[in-house]
Amino acid sequence: MDKVQTLKGFRDFLPDQAQKRQYVVTLLRAIFESYGFSPLETPTLEYEEILTGKYGDEGDKLMYRFEDNGGRRVALRYDQTVPLARVVAQYKDKLPSPFKRYQIQNVWRAENTQKGRFREFLQCDIDTVGTTNSLSDAEILAVISDSYETLGFKKFTIRINDRNVFSDLPTRAIIAIDKLKKIGKEQVEKELDDLGLPKETLEKLQNTPPTENLNNILTDTKRFGIPEDRIVFDPTLARGLDYYTGIIIEVEVEGYAVGSVGGGGRYDKLVGMFEKNDIPAVGFSFGFDRVMEAMEEQNLFPEYFSNSVLVTIFSEDLIDTAIETSYKLRAMDIPTELYLDPRVKMDKQLKYADQKNIRYAIIIGPEEVKKDVVTVKNLKTRQQQQVPLTDVPSVLK
Amino acid sequence: MDKVQTLKGFRDFLPDQAQKRQYVVTLLRAIFESYGFSPLETPTLEYEEILTGKYGDEGDKLMYRFEDNGGRRVALRYDQTVPLARVVAQYKDKLPSPFKRYQIQNVWRAENTQKGRFREFLQCDIDTVGTTNSLSDAEILAVISDSYETLGFKKFTIRINDRNVFSDLPTRAIIAIDKLKKIGKEQVEKELDDLGLPKETLEKLQNTPPTENLNNILTDTKRFGIPEDRIVFDPTLARGLDYYTGIIIEVEVEGYAVGSVGGGGRYDKLVGMFEKNDIPAVGFSFGFDRVMEAMEEQNLFPEYFSNSVLVTIFSEDLIDTAIETSYKLRAMDIPTELYLDPRVKMDKQLKYADQKNIRYAIIIGPEEVKKDVVTVKNLKTRQQQQVPLTDVPSVLK
Repeated sequence: MDKVQTLKGFRDFLPDQAQKRQYVVTLLRAIFESYGFSPLETPTLEYEEILTGKYGDEGDKLMYRFEDNGGRRVALRYDQTVPLARVVAQYKDKLPSPFKRYQIQNVWRAENTQKGRFREFLQCDIDTVGTTNSLSDAEILAVISDSYETLGFKKFTIRINDRNVFSDLPTRAIIAIDKLKKIGKEQVEKELDDLGLPKETLEKLQNTPPTENLNNILTDTKRFGIPEDRIVFDPTLARGLDYYTGIIIEVEVEGYAVGSVGGGGRYDKLVGMFEKNDIPAVGFSFGFDRVMEAMEEQNLFPEYFSNSVLVTIFSEDLIDTAIETSYKLRAMDIPTELYLDPRVKMDKQLKYADQKNIRYAIIIGPEEVKKDVVTVKNLKTRQQQQVPLTDVPSVLK
Repeated sequence: MDKVQTLKGFRDFLPDQAQKRQYVVTLLRAIFESYGFSPLETPTLEYEEILTGKYGDEGDKLMYRFEDNGGRRVALRYDQTVPLARVVAQYKDKLPSPFKRYQIQNVWRAENTQKGRFREFLQCDIDTVGTTNSLSDAEILAVISDSYETLGFKKFTIRINDRNVFSDLPTRAIIAIDKLKKIGKEQVEKELDDLGLPKETLEKLQNTPPTENLNNILTDTKRFGIPEDRIVFDPTLARGLDYYTGIIIEVEVEGYAVGSVGGGGRYDKLVGMFEKNDIPAVGFSFGFDRVMEAMEEQNLFPEYFSNSVLVTIFSEDLIDTAIETSYKLRAMDIPTELYLDPRVKMDKQLKYADQKNIRYAIIIGPEEVKKDVVTVKNLKTRQQQQVPLTDVPSVLK
């Protein structure tokens, strides 16, 4: 017998969890599409040369790469930005400009699982490619604001900065400043001192006003209906990665301590990697696993995903009635599961409904048949009532 | 510069195509869930030993396998049944019984692409695990019937047979009979003759009546609301695979010549592969790519996926009005894209809407501002009218 197990860093999502993931994906999709972002799917496997050298040494090391049966060097998707750049280069005459796409697919990274990281995880990105107009930056902020609000987060902050705030600082200084939250002011100042920068560098930076670019974006965000206090300018926000060229964005949820639940910004030098010219772009990546975790902590998932019912089978001679009832309820747009074994006792059938988080049970015994009604039992309150079948939809409301 | 290309047998799905795929997946999901099937997701990579030896020599050959960075032998998901069997063994105390799950994930097979086959494709499966009750077989047929109907197919046939119809025949005879549609009666009879079987074997089989098991299932299907002529008993249906133990199912769409658009059946000896005991199961796999192709041929995709609008920007001084209008329309639940560059001429903005298959454009120039209205332009009929913003939803209907 084989050892029955999954690889470290890889996860099964049983129905409970898969349903919640689906719930989040569906909400986000709807918001992205309501702003005119369209779905894109790219293959799981790419030619290795498309991906290598694009994510630094670390990326090349963590990438899943192998030789396929035909002797080709291939690699598993490592992020969704390089595939986006390839798509933009490969189909440039076919794509609208600007190209606004969302992409929700898995990526694979051979991360150290001891740090609680996963080796397969869902990325959830929106990007607007092909325009430098600050309207596109403001629109990304609007999507972000709508998304976290729709997911149910009561209080969250969209922190923004402009890469050009750092224009006078060397990269290593930015890397030091980026650690401000983790290591504190004193330690950052020490690191800046070690780099030979004046002591007041950090404080000076902290007092920098927003750039003209950010002010333009901020003006537009008000018209987009984003509450003003939701967006906070933070001149020390750097987001490690040095490919940003304009706005930098990070989202924090109040009460969720693990870290930011998404990040992004403008990156005008990256999407053109497979072309001769730069292609401007602005985008945002939702931290899917963290969003799920924060929602779980803050109880943001609905108790029931639908007003579903289980039609129980009272006895073998009432199978036909049960099937017909299930058919009729489904025709009334009620998600209706039929219990599949008439020999199983009623209390076990009801337990099954509980286990599947079904909200109501329908019971049709000889008494119900005689009175031409069904019993609707609320499985949470344990209350029940007899009603004609046609009244069931209103009882469920 | 790298060669910008995808691997043979792997596909990008640009927005047009991705939207259609999403449309089909969303419809199917809703039906599966309305019958109480719950989503399951398993990892892309499994330990190689979990998958090898489960699909015959062919499967072991076509499977994507490699050694990961940690020296583990791993393999990419080849189908969704072996992972289901692993899940059932690994979490048996956690899962409801019967376990009704659907799974819609990619699988990878190093197929010969010259035959028009893909190496990465979506599988779309429903399975009921843990009961032999014929109600579960009938329910699968009901889901199938509802699914193809909801996708819009006007005429399709669910062909069924019972594995036990073949109980007196050797496997090689079944394989010969399975080719009946492809090679014709005469050729099959010749092959049977070569196997030393009497000439009348095929004809005798063709006149076999349905088994008691099938009759039970057929009786139930009527109560499930499946039109009677939709299910056809075909005693020569074998579906190649020899793991079926009861009902065998195949679906054909009238007018689609490539072949069946889905298949399945009862397989009581397979899901227990990681356990000591057999675990009964019945299921069905939708041929996703063929369904997409047949829908395309028969024009079953909606012309527009929603009544979306593009808010154009008339001139730079009217940016604010345009943003606000887009915000207000979205608040009225209208999917609203805002054009992102005020310097682009109106006809180019409208062309962009056309390219994105957006149904309506909203134009707000100085005249509209003065009259406190917006112009709604139907991009197909090219008709337009001026209405107050609050009337836009009714115009779109």
